[in-house]
Amino acid sequence: MSTSSRCAACRHLRRRCPSDCIFAPYFPANDPHRFACVHKIYGSSKVGNMLQDLPVELRAEAADAICIEAECRVQDPVYGCVRMISLLQQQIHNAESQLVKARAEIAVLGSHAQELRHHVQDI
Amino acid sequence: MSTSSRCAACRHLRRRCPSDCIFAPYFPANDPHRFACVHKIYGSSKVGNMLQDLPVELRAEAADAICIEAECRVQDPVYGCVRMISLLQQQIHNAESQLVKARAEIAVLGSHAQELRHHVQDI
Repeated sequence: MSTSSRCAACRHLRRRCPSDCIFAPYFPANDPHRFACVHKIYGSSKVGNMLQDLPVELRAEAADAICIEAECRVQDPVYGCVRMISLLQQQIHNAESQLVKARAEIAVLGSHAQELRHHVQDI
Repeated sequence: MSTSSRCAACRHLRRRCPSDCIFAPYFPANDPHRFACVHKIYGSSKVGNMLQDLPVELRAEAADAICIEAECRVQDPVYGCVRMISLLQQQIHNAESQLVKARAEIAVLGSHAQELRHHVQDI
């Protein structure tokens, strides 16, 4: 395989890109940042092993998830994507609190409407 | 340092635990699973470098977040903790949809109560 058709991983690792390259389908040459992140965080042999251990049909989704985690950790070297999990949990907590309040308000308005209806009937 | 006081990382790596071990404060000997996970996913040198690159006061939180990510990926080798992010996003979407419905119901009940009040006044 010629130098120009090496995948982003083989370019990064300065090696020949074999025809059965484990990285090539998930790390195209036109997105070098994607491999640079996973290489920095996991190292190429770990990523290669993680992909190799999975059935072929699951590797694309695994590569995407590994890239998300690696990019999060490059951007936030302390919390990585755990920060996003914390923020989302906080957001759910807020939404659920608002929902509890809204349901309480519905109950009050419902019973108030009921009282008014009885009052109208009594008149 | 004696063999019995080696941290979980140095035990796992079958090496002497130096007095300034980068792992020792975050990987105590009594929790070998914690280091086994991060070693499997990141490898010890990547984890050592990630901790080393941070100020000391941030390393404990970084080690916890790295362990969460590694444990998620050991349990779910395709999606890792990205699955949790997707589930939480779905949960927020559901809570927010319910909130929109609840607020619409409040608006309807409020205007209905208003109409009944006017009706009572007219009588």
